[in-house]
Amino acid sequence: MVKARRFVLAKHFVGEPKEDDFELVEEELPDLKDGEIRVEAVALSVDPYMRPYSVNHPVGTTMFGSQVARIVESRSEAYPVGKLVVGQFGWRERAVVDVGKQDLTGLPKPYIVPDFKGLSKSLALGVLGMTGNTAYFGFLELCKPKAGETVAVTGAAGAVGSTVGQIAKIKGCKVIGFAGSDDKVKWLTSELGFDHAFNYKTTDIDEALKKAAPNGIDCYFDNVGGKLSSTIIKQMNNFGRISVCGSVASYNEDPSNLPEAPIIQRAIVGKQLKMEGFLVKRWSNRWLEGINQLLQWIVEGKLKYNETVTRGFENMPTAFIEMLQGKNVGKAVVKV
Amino acid sequence: MVKARRFVLAKHFVGEPKEDDFELVEEELPDLKDGEIRVEAVALSVDPYMRPYSVNHPVGTTMFGSQVARIVESRSEAYPVGKLVVGQFGWRERAVVDVGKQDLTGLPKPYIVPDFKGLSKSLALGVLGMTGNTAYFGFLELCKPKAGETVAVTGAAGAVGSTVGQIAKIKGCKVIGFAGSDDKVKWLTSELGFDHAFNYKTTDIDEALKKAAPNGIDCYFDNVGGKLSSTIIKQMNNFGRISVCGSVASYNEDPSNLPEAPIIQRAIVGKQLKMEGFLVKRWSNRWLEGINQLLQWIVEGKLKYNETVTRGFENMPTAFIEMLQGKNVGKAVVKV
Repeated sequence: MVKARRFVLAKHFVGEPKEDDFELVEEELPDLKDGEIRVEAVALSVDPYMRPYSVNHPVGTTMFGSQVARIVESRSEAYPVGKLVVGQFGWRERAVVDVGKQDLTGLPKPYIVPDFKGLSKSLALGVLGMTGNTAYFGFLELCKPKAGETVAVTGAAGAVGSTVGQIAKIKGCKVIGFAGSDDKVKWLTSELGFDHAFNYKTTDIDEALKKAAPNGIDCYFDNVGGKLSSTIIKQMNNFGRISVCGSVASYNEDPSNLPEAPIIQRAIVGKQLKMEGFLVKRWSNRWLEGINQLLQWIVEGKLKYNETVTRGFENMPTAFIEMLQGKNVGKAVVKV
Repeated sequence: MVKARRFVLAKHFVGEPKEDDFELVEEELPDLKDGEIRVEAVALSVDPYMRPYSVNHPVGTTMFGSQVARIVESRSEAYPVGKLVVGQFGWRERAVVDVGKQDLTGLPKPYIVPDFKGLSKSLALGVLGMTGNTAYFGFLELCKPKAGETVAVTGAAGAVGSTVGQIAKIKGCKVIGFAGSDDKVKWLTSELGFDHAFNYKTTDIDEALKKAAPNGIDCYFDNVGGKLSSTIIKQMNNFGRISVCGSVASYNEDPSNLPEAPIIQRAIVGKQLKMEGFLVKRWSNRWLEGINQLLQWIVEGKLKYNETVTRGFENMPTAFIEMLQGKNVGKAVVKV
């Protein structure tokens, strides 16, 4: 028998998640059946979506999420021992997984990590995985940016936002990013090539946008919602497109008592704006198309990425909490 | 020389428009040049959009809007004397109009009122004109309703909303309307065939919707914005569509200091909703398609309409103010 540890949701979060909202449980893994594999986590993902999704899961649920894992035992030919696999295995150090079973998340079923041309395999959780595809499909498919247009991105120093801004540059757009610290802002303009970046905590957004985007904003990739979004949306151009990826501003709030912000419908009508929310699973059937394009851009030197790495499986809750506090730059991962 | 009266914007509105925000000006009309016609108003339109649009016009501007007018003199062959014409002639009792000139509103250029099969010509301002087409195109093109789906409409007893709800019924949908008085609510269910209707001023919307739409809402036609919209949007289904026609809740407010409402981005993401605002001029090139279909539905007894008629050109401001206060049922018009 193999011993394994996993984190379960011990209490539903109230406001910001806390360490004792999680419980580390030890168990013995069962023997493999046909079609199953046993994996050991190499790197695990912590993502903003986990905060709002937790509401839909009962206390005692194993925390959900993706990981890169090494296959250490296999009863499935397509998943040989020794290979690295990406899957929705949750916050588990070791696990037995039925790789043939339809995944309820709607995300791609477990897949062997493609050839990353020597790049870190943990990127399969970030720029070469769900967050990269979130940026790639969510921005290109919903905003449909054209060269010469102006693009605004919030949460711009996050895993998704930093990729969206760079894709917009690759497509010939002018890019304006918003992030929550001066260090992040500096990284966006000096390293990633954003045309302008602002610390939304210390900037008069209305004024800053009038100067940085005197001709208005055509595309807005929204990670935050709330007042910042209302301010940006007011300065959009006719037929502007808004892709809504997240609403971090609301994640720590009670869903039955959401925060308020200036209403956006007046701008939506007057400028004939289109706003669409998405979950990346919508493009599960095009998953490798996105990853291959992102990999190519990295290899060509057009797309940069950053990881904030926390060491040790037992530090998953800390990594998650700090990511929600905005302490990460780029993708937050935990390496075992 | 012919004397003519028109209303100009004497002051910019602060909060609700008031009688003395308008000034009635008398002038002499010029002689006709080639391509011009002289018209006398028969019926004039007062519409919610006039409130927010006024912000973009300087004091002294002639109030803008459409009217049905009789051609009393003509130097344009396509516009013969005696015919009725629909055009963006503003709040004018009499006017000289260059019918060849491109209209800055983007709406169709002046057109002779089609054969309405004996129905009142003033309908060219309502269900067989801009408001009818606003409902027809704005709902069908952006919400893309399917038979069996559930549709919510706010401002449901207004000119546009009452038409949207009936079109939804024609398309085989379940329809839930929200209006601002018990009389209006009664009219929606007993006369227009709405499945449910609620007085949003006296109803717990969250509870009412859970009962009336236990399977959630697929399409939402939004005339109001604000808190009511936030509440409805929270109860929408995956891949729901929101057509934003107006935001009456904000029209009397300072655009630089809009009212606040619970943020909608969390629902937009989680349910992958699509929200789009529109101005009906987008479909100017399909104008008569809409009117012909609406006329056919009226003739077949499938589509009902109502007009709230104010008599006398000099009462334009009163009719406008009362319409914004929600005193009308169906289309508000002024007959000269």
